[in-house]
Amino acid sequence: MNQRGILVVVSGFSGAGKGTLMKELLKRYDNYALSISATTRSPREGELDGREYFFVDKERFQQMIAEGELIEYAQYVNHYYGTPREYVERQMASGKDVILEIEIQGALKVKKRFPDTLLLFVTPPSARELKSRLVGRGTETIEVINARLRRAAEEAAGMEAYDYLLINDEIETCVEEMHQLIQLQHCRTSYHLDFLNQMREELYHLDD
Amino acid sequence: MNQRGILVVVSGFSGAGKGTLMKELLKRYDNYALSISATTRSPREGELDGREYFFVDKERFQQMIAEGELIEYAQYVNHYYGTPREYVERQMASGKDVILEIEIQGALKVKKRFPDTLLLFVTPPSARELKSRLVGRGTETIEVINARLRRAAEEAAGMEAYDYLLINDEIETCVEEMHQLIQLQHCRTSYHLDFLNQMREELYHLDD
Repeated sequence: MNQRGILVVVSGFSGAGKGTLMKELLKRYDNYALSISATTRSPREGELDGREYFFVDKERFQQMIAEGELIEYAQYVNHYYGTPREYVERQMASGKDVILEIEIQGALKVKKRFPDTLLLFVTPPSARELKSRLVGRGTETIEVINARLRRAAEEAAGMEAYDYLLINDEIETCVEEMHQLIQLQHCRTSYHLDFLNQMREELYHLDD
Repeated sequence: MNQRGILVVVSGFSGAGKGTLMKELLKRYDNYALSISATTRSPREGELDGREYFFVDKERFQQMIAEGELIEYAQYVNHYYGTPREYVERQMASGKDVILEIEIQGALKVKKRFPDTLLLFVTPPSARELKSRLVGRGTETIEVINARLRRAAEEAAGMEAYDYLLINDEIETCVEEMHQLIQLQHCRTSYHLDFLNQMREELYHLDD
């Protein structure tokens, strides 16, 4: 059957390897679409409107909120970030499984609004491994890293609400696990209620 | 990690090929254990106590009910059937994924008591295919088959509560799908709460 795509939220600690995972997943399989966020912050070097983000001004963003054009949104520092509904809906209708890479609070809002959403949380195998990955990047001082880890611990409140936990020990295994998990969601009974009703109907009228 | 096994209920229309699926699954993978029911009916030819069923008398069965030794039970015609808790618990503790092959009403009771239970429903691709499989067996008259199909339609009430629907079109695909589905349940967040709490604890105390 030509199925409607499903909505997947991927969250995880920074340093868990989420970015690499998503890149691999999209490279290997053509049934995924990555949701593109709208933001009021300015484009950075190399970022393209409609590729990394939809860049909009504050007025337009507030209009999007007011008109229900966003699945979820949040404010960080002075900027808004949100998920435009139209792009997501269009991709799902065309059969693509759409992946939202957002943080926990946004994820919980999406799940509340669309209970069929699959919530995946990516974690490194241990806190120590997470730290050593962040240190290994060499982009931040140890103080910044320690502060970030403590914030990660606080932000992790709500992780229990995620459906599945993916332990990214080895990227190869993890990307396949993620793919299988998403694909098997297509078997969820809730996506096949029409099939079930038709089956039941037919069972009653087979004695011809 | 050496994980506790998970509890899986498999139900489905008779004629859906459940029996063959289970047999294949247990032949291919050694991480499964099939739950053995207790029953008050007499053993049929070739059936062994502790293999097909635990055969017990009515008095013993009622004692099992009274003492909470059964996960679920039901009465058909004049006989009781039930799932002894002790065998299931022991297998799960040893890391086996335990499969209960029971009907919908029992499945819903199990799920209510153990919300982590995975409910799988096996169906043939269509009502017509189901009928032709039953006719193909050649063991029942067409009247009996039609009555059975109508009963199946009635019994199918509750199917929506199942987690996943497996369409058994081709046994090879279906058995692998079932295996993957069960194995990926081990990634459910609810099975990793200890890991999550430990992770959070460690994140707070890494700046040493």
